[in-house]
Formats: sequence, structure tokens, C-alpha cells
Amino acid sequence: MDQPQTDTGRAEEAQGDARDKTPRTERGRRTLRKLLDAAAVEFGERGFHEASISAITRRAGTALGSFYTYFDSKEEIFQALVRYMSEQLRDHVTPLVQAAPDEISAERIGLESYLGFVREHKEIYRIIDEAEFVDYASYRSHYETTVARVRQRLENGAARGEIRGDVSEIHAWAIGGMNVFLGMRYGLWDTESDISEIAAIANDLLANGLKKRD
Amino acid sequence: MDQPQTDTGRAEEAQGDARDKTPRTERGRRTLRKLLDAAAVEFGERGFHEASISAITRRAGTALGSFYTYFDSKEEIFQALVRYMSEQLRDHVTPLVQAAPDEISAERIGLESYLGFVREHKEIYRIIDEAEFVDYASYRSHYETTVARVRQRLENGAARGEIRGDVSEIHAWAIGGMNVFLGMRYGLWDTESDISEIAAIANDLLANGLKKRD
Repeated sequence: MDQPQTDTGRAEEAQGDARDKTPRTERGRRTLRKLLDAAAVEFGERGFHEASISAITRRAGTALGSFYTYFDSKEEIFQALVRYMSEQLRDHVTPLVQAAPDEISAERIGLESYLGFVREHKEIYRIIDEAEFVDYASYRSHYETTVARVRQRLENGAARGEIRGDVSEIHAWAIGGMNVFLGMRYGLWDTESDISEIAAIANDLLANGLKKRD
Repeated sequence: MDQPQTDTGRAEEAQGDARDKTPRTERGRRTLRKLLDAAAVEFGERGFHEASISAITRRAGTALGSFYTYFDSKEEIFQALVRYMSEQLRDHVTPLVQAAPDEISAERIGLESYLGFVREHKEIYRIIDEAEFVDYASYRSHYETTVARVRQRLENGAARGEIRGDVSEIHAWAIGGMNVFLGMRYGLWDTESDISEIAAIANDLLANGLKKRD
């Protein structure tokens, strides 16, 4: 396929498969973000197969050439979008979690902020889940990265003596799954319930288990 | 579309959209199961869009007409397959869970038998997850039905005084998500780990939470 002309006047950057497509200017970074935000709406509404590059640039309000400055194909922007959403989620949750007074509270705040993120970005489920079929490596990497963060929090909390010392990867996957399913049920499907109440109930289960109370 | 001839000699049953396609003979039930088992392999290996009805009947070793005795389309057998896999899972897990001495053990046995089922039926993730895109109602119904069973177990356990009394739908979704993610990580991706050890560790988290031990 012929390499389309870019509209940035830096066509020399757009040559070759391994070209570095990282924007070097603030204007470039802004265009890239516009394309990714537009891609989230387009893939979220129409799914990977129905989505088109021209609809993405139309939604982004950029020239078609801008697309090819940063991406070679629909597959490539989809892959970048999965990473972008994964990072947006991390950037939303991490500062709130880091400000928590202890690890148990951190998990409550993490879940509550995740539920809030899902309500604001409902397309996240469809996009991440479609990655299972479009780009399995991105799908798996999203979950492995997310769960690795949970595991790190658990280990830090255990080292500070706030929770049991034997926490492992298994606990981290259990918590990750809990959060993703609660997000689907109470973030995506049900947008009425009080998310801080849901996070508090799930957090109490995590903190104390199913043990009978006095 | 012309209604294809069936190979059962009961073509009169095959008329109309709302026709009852439930097999009435043991031979019919066997053919239907063969078609569904073949569909699980075909959809599991090739995905919905690449899969074909003729490949399903070839894998099943049945005539093409048999397919149309029971299904009108690829969509229809896919929908039936999601329900079939959901029921196979239930039939695998339920008797083991019901034989458990108490609710905490039931959740451990439920998870362990689920992990075992996933290792034997790896296609279950791809098929259920693809339902999100092919037939959302089936996707949602699979999880709602599965979680409703967890909730019933929790409520029964609470009524028997084996666990805390305030268990709710939120606890059931948390446990459902835990199990699905542990199944992906340790049933689908990692087939080496000891599933009874994983189930025991996750069950201890569920029973006692993250509380520090003495």
C-alpha cells in the first residue's frame, strides 16, 4: 500500500514499518489524543469490524493524513486504544489509591473509583473485551498489568503489616475479577446504585470474608 | 429462504419460525448433542464469523438437513450453544457443590470443579465472551444465571448460620468475578498449577478476608 501523505509536513517521519510514531510536539500529542478519544467512541459504538478509519478522523475533526502519521491501520489504532484506555484507567485510579491511609481502604477506594470510571467510560468493556478477538496479546496484557498493580499494593500492605503476610498472585487475580464483575453489574448495567455503598460492601467482604459476625 | 428438507422424516415439524425444535426421540436428542458438541469445537477454534454450518455438520458426522431440523441459522445454534455450555457447567459443578458439608466448603469445591471444567473445555471462554458481540442477551443471561446460583448458595448458607447473615447480590457478583478470573488465569492460561491449591487459597480469602493472622 502507498504510504499516504501526512498533513504535518513531517512526511519523512512517516516512512517504514518500524518508524517512531511518537509525537514530538504538543500539537502532535493533542492530535494523537483526539484520534484515540474518537477511536474510543467509534469502536465503542460500532465495534471493531464496523468501525472505519475515516469515521475516526471525522469524529476527531482531523485530516485523514493525520491518522497515518500515527497509525498504519485500524488494527494498530485499536491496539493503541486498548493501551490508552488501560493507562487512562490507571491514571484515574492510582492517585486516589495512593492517598489511601491503608491497604484495605486503598482497595475500597480503588473499586469505587473504578466504578465511577466505568460509568463515565462505558465503552471500556466493549473495547477491552473485543481485544480478546482482535488482538489477544493486548487483551491479556491489559489484565496482567492491572492485576500486577493489585498484587504490588497487596505486597506493600503486607510489608507494612496492614494485612495478612501470605498474599500472592492468586489474591490479586481474585480481587481483579471481583472488581471487573462488579464494574459490569453496577457500573455498566446499573447506573442507579450508590457506588460508594457497593464498594464498601465488597470491601468488607475482602477485609473480613464470609465469617459470621457476633 | 427455502426450508431445507430434514433427514428425520418429520419435515412437518420443521415448518414455521415458532416451530418446536425440541427432539422427541432419544436418537434426536443424540443428534442435537452431537451438533452442539461440534459447534463448541467449531466456534471455539474459528470464532463466530469464520465458523460455518457445513463445518459443524461435518464435525458432527450428521447430514446438513439435521442441522435445519433443530436450528434455522448459525446465530441460532450459537445462542443454543451458550445455553448448552452454561448448563453443562452447572451440571458439572452443582452435584459436587451440593455434597459439600457447609457453604464455605461449597464455594471451594465450586471453584475447584470450575477450574477443572475450564481445563477440559477451554473453548468456554472464547464462546461465552464472543456472545458479548454476537448475542448480548445470551451473554448477560449466562452471567446472571450463574451469579444467581452463587447468591442462592450464600443465602442458604446464611440461613443455616454457616456464614454472615448480610450476604447479598453484591457478594455473589464478587465471587462470580473471582471465579471467572481465576479460571482464565489458572484454568485457561496456566494448566500446570495445582487447582485444588488455588481453590484452597482463594477460598481462605473468601472465608477470612485479608485480616492479619496471629
